[in-house]
Amino acid sequence: MFLTLLGVTLSVQLVIYQVGLIPSQFYEVLSEKNYGKFKNLVLFAVMLILINSTLKSLDQYISSLLYVSWRKSLTEELHRTYFKGRVYYTLNVLCKDIDNPDQRISQDVERLCKQMSTMASRLLISPFTVTYYTYQCFNSAGWIGFVSIFGYFVVGSILNKILIGPIVSMLVEQEKLEGDFRFKHMQIRVNAEAAAFYRAGKVEHMRTDRRLQMLLSTQRSLMNKELWLYIGVNTFDYLGSILSYIVIAIPIFAGDYDGLTPGELSALVSKNAFVCIYLINCFTQLIDLSTTVLLKTQCYYDSLLVILKVVCFLFLLVPESENSDTAFVLDRLSYKSPVSEELLVKDLTLKISQGTHMLVVGNTGTGKTSLLRVLNGLWEACNGSVEMTTCFGPRGVLFLPQKAYLTDGTLREQVIYPLKDIYPSSGSIDDERILKYLELVGLSNLLSRIGGLDTKVDWNWYDVLSPGEMQRLCFARLFYLQPKYAGQFLHSFIKFPVALTTIISQMIPFMSCVKSKTCGLFQYWMRPPAL
Amino acid sequence: MFLTLLGVTLSVQLVIYQVGLIPSQFYEVLSEKNYGKFKNLVLFAVMLILINSTLKSLDQYISSLLYVSWRKSLTEELHRTYFKGRVYYTLNVLCKDIDNPDQRISQDVERLCKQMSTMASRLLISPFTVTYYTYQCFNSAGWIGFVSIFGYFVVGSILNKILIGPIVSMLVEQEKLEGDFRFKHMQIRVNAEAAAFYRAGKVEHMRTDRRLQMLLSTQRSLMNKELWLYIGVNTFDYLGSILSYIVIAIPIFAGDYDGLTPGELSALVSKNAFVCIYLINCFTQLIDLSTTVLLKTQCYYDSLLVILKVVCFLFLLVPESENSDTAFVLDRLSYKSPVSEELLVKDLTLKISQGTHMLVVGNTGTGKTSLLRVLNGLWEACNGSVEMTTCFGPRGVLFLPQKAYLTDGTLREQVIYPLKDIYPSSGSIDDERILKYLELVGLSNLLSRIGGLDTKVDWNWYDVLSPGEMQRLCFARLFYLQPKYAGQFLHSFIKFPVALTTIISQMIPFMSCVKSKTCGLFQYWMRPPAL
Repeated sequence: MFLTLLGVTLSVQLVIYQVGLIPSQFYEVLSEKNYGKFKNLVLFAVMLILINSTLKSLDQYISSLLYVSWRKSLTEELHRTYFKGRVYYTLNVLCKDIDNPDQRISQDVERLCKQMSTMASRLLISPFTVTYYTYQCFNSAGWIGFVSIFGYFVVGSILNKILIGPIVSMLVEQEKLEGDFRFKHMQIRVNAEAAAFYRAGKVEHMRTDRRLQMLLSTQRSLMNKELWLYIGVNTFDYLGSILSYIVIAIPIFAGDYDGLTPGELSALVSKNAFVCIYLINCFTQLIDLSTTVLLKTQCYYDSLLVILKVVCFLFLLVPESENSDTAFVLDRLSYKSPVSEELLVKDLTLKISQGTHMLVVGNTGTGKTSLLRVLNGLWEACNGSVEMTTCFGPRGVLFLPQKAYLTDGTLREQVIYPLKDIYPSSGSIDDERILKYLELVGLSNLLSRIGGLDTKVDWNWYDVLSPGEMQRLCFARLFYLQPKYAGQFLHSFIKFPVALTTIISQMIPFMSCVKSKTCGLFQYWMRPPAL
Repeated sequence: MFLTLLGVTLSVQLVIYQVGLIPSQFYEVLSEKNYGKFKNLVLFAVMLILINSTLKSLDQYISSLLYVSWRKSLTEELHRTYFKGRVYYTLNVLCKDIDNPDQRISQDVERLCKQMSTMASRLLISPFTVTYYTYQCFNSAGWIGFVSIFGYFVVGSILNKILIGPIVSMLVEQEKLEGDFRFKHMQIRVNAEAAAFYRAGKVEHMRTDRRLQMLLSTQRSLMNKELWLYIGVNTFDYLGSILSYIVIAIPIFAGDYDGLTPGELSALVSKNAFVCIYLINCFTQLIDLSTTVLLKTQCYYDSLLVILKVVCFLFLLVPESENSDTAFVLDRLSYKSPVSEELLVKDLTLKISQGTHMLVVGNTGTGKTSLLRVLNGLWEACNGSVEMTTCFGPRGVLFLPQKAYLTDGTLREQVIYPLKDIYPSSGSIDDERILKYLELVGLSNLLSRIGGLDTKVDWNWYDVLSPGEMQRLCFARLFYLQPKYAGQFLHSFIKFPVALTTIISQMIPFMSCVKSKTCGLFQYWMRPPAL
């Protein structure tokens, strides 16, 4: 692809050079008033232009293809790291050194690739063009021309660097605020119903507006600073345009071209003007490239890198040892919330093995949920050790989160979550099981309401199911997955059909008990019913 | 602002005209080899350029200010409508004719304003430039020149229109897919912990990648179509550049300028070239404007309009009558979920008045939550009527959502939600109440953990509070707000300190009872304790 692009851009350059020479030929022809030559020239010009524009469009086309393929590979690479282990959890909940990782992946990558692709052809071609037009410039304006233009470029790039300095940090800040503003809107979208119940429109309005104000004020002050950059760049560009005449003037006044008629002379001037201006353009483009790279890229490039780094540290957390009759061995384990200093649990020693059911009771905020987080490796223990002898995941140890999480997709995808796309679904046998479990948890009415396991749904599941139904769906999930161990947060007494109630009650003969302060909500370990 | 912009752009045009004439003067001077003139010309040129670039930068600066102010007013207007009544709920949950309203507001507005502002100065100036350069062109190339250029423009714009046609719809599609991709990422960010507990990384990875693929394939086919547009536009631009020479050629070959020396002639040609090319540029710009407006704007302009419309229909839902001893009178009310056809409750007649407490019991999915939705006006009733005699909001009827909704901000803002920013906080008296209620629900430990009511927190509250704590926080909220009526979904038995338990038990003498099928979870109406 790069080669084709290079080829196309090179030929574009050749044609552009021809096209650029046309005006000077027009000058010659017109000052000679030679009609025959004029006609041919016009035909020649039209032909050239057609070729030129086709090639140029091809150039644009290829670079946009490059954009897509770059975005594809970069985003997929980011996804790979983002979803590996629990990077997405760490980035979003624990470590705060990246703002809005989701937007970094879904949007900043896009912009990054767009800019890179637009630059691609220029970068590829610049060495050729610079050398070629330097040579041309040397021919028509001698070494003075070449030197002066080059010096001009050096000065320009230095000025540019000075002017950009103060802006970069501010631009980063602006990017962050943009992200927060989007996130606020997203938060409202996700919690639309809750907000509606609170009649929270006014407050949310205020809050969102406040964020908008912060963003806009930053943008304003940014623009004030950019004004100077603009002035610098503009002056630079225009001065370049007359530089060519000064350059050519030197040999003319030195009398090198005394032999030429005024007509030829102006043709020469125009040719030289074109060459010089083009060379200057090449340089100016290089400066612009550095500008954009410096300015825009810096804003999110770093964070993307961070995302790519995080994985290395996280992968150590997931040991993958197979079957065993104990799931966890906790030895004098102490842990605390990452955001506070106070210990939640101190010196907890405990063994969780197959066939035993354990109940953890305690007041809210005493660290029951946190225990599961620690077992999960989501939080790190302060001291003591967690030895895990069974692998995580739907076939080993499975934790059901407190807030029922329904992903997008069909009803089937909800039930067999998170299995879909990892093991091929085993067809009709699978269907029977799913239906059985749906009935078991008393959700068979869902089927009729939605119209089948595989009917494509475009709604957000949180909006159509009642919380009770969501919880039942999670149980169906659990029974379908049949993990060796299951950790479940039970906050509510769900009224199941009798059959299930008995099963669950059989499943929960309370063996050991970790008291943390007074009694309250409970969570328990259970083995799914062998049906 | 518009006037200053107009002034600046006009003067920019004047200077640009002068700058544009410089090359022709250089031709003259150089072909005459007049050194004195040359020096003056150079000085003159440099001066002009300095003025020019300053003015131009000012122009850019003003239009970027315009961008900010436009974005400000448009976004604020959208916020006003979006948060009025329950538009945000309707748009996000009920009506599906807008994809990703949140992104429309937070991002598409931004792009829209950016484009508009870049066009602003051009649009303002175009009538002047077009007339002026038409006049100039008329002077140097006669009416033929003028007519031919104008005809050229007409042809160009027609071609443009034809080429754009097939692309628009595809671009809209692409925008939608971009939105969905962002939303998917957002969903993962919000449910990071749940996903982590499920070890759902692999699945989510698959899902997200799938969305990416869909997006990218659409982009690819879009680019294939755009290729032709590119070719058309490029050819058009280049042909314009030689058109000028043809135009000037006509009078020359007609012999109108026989009196001129070749030097003067080439000066004339260059002047004419500049004038014509500039005129053509004006036209080309107009075409580009129409292109961008057609292409980009159309994608989200419609949806923004829809958001602005929705409010009218929604405002009828909120009658604001004051104090009364009954909250709701339901008369033969039937309702169903907006997404299904099956009736949830049929002919429910019921009166809810002050001092009475009501318990609604029923199996999951039998329409208890939906009843509250209907009372709230979130859903519409199929038939029957809901008469509401008390206003909604923290001072009248308040519903606590099932899923505790914690907004961003300090602990105080959590407790007094949704009051903040509507009534000025009454300072220390307020503090005492807040602390009292926090202690009452057993959350005083939060204060020490977080470090005060007003300590700025940058975390997401869902990540630091356990679900139990969230629920308690919602109770504290309820007691703080002291509404006349409160509708609360109770899914869990929260272990409160004794004091509170007695208060609640006093608050719930079950009076009337709407049975819907078997017993299960319950919700109750309660009056907050008068403390």
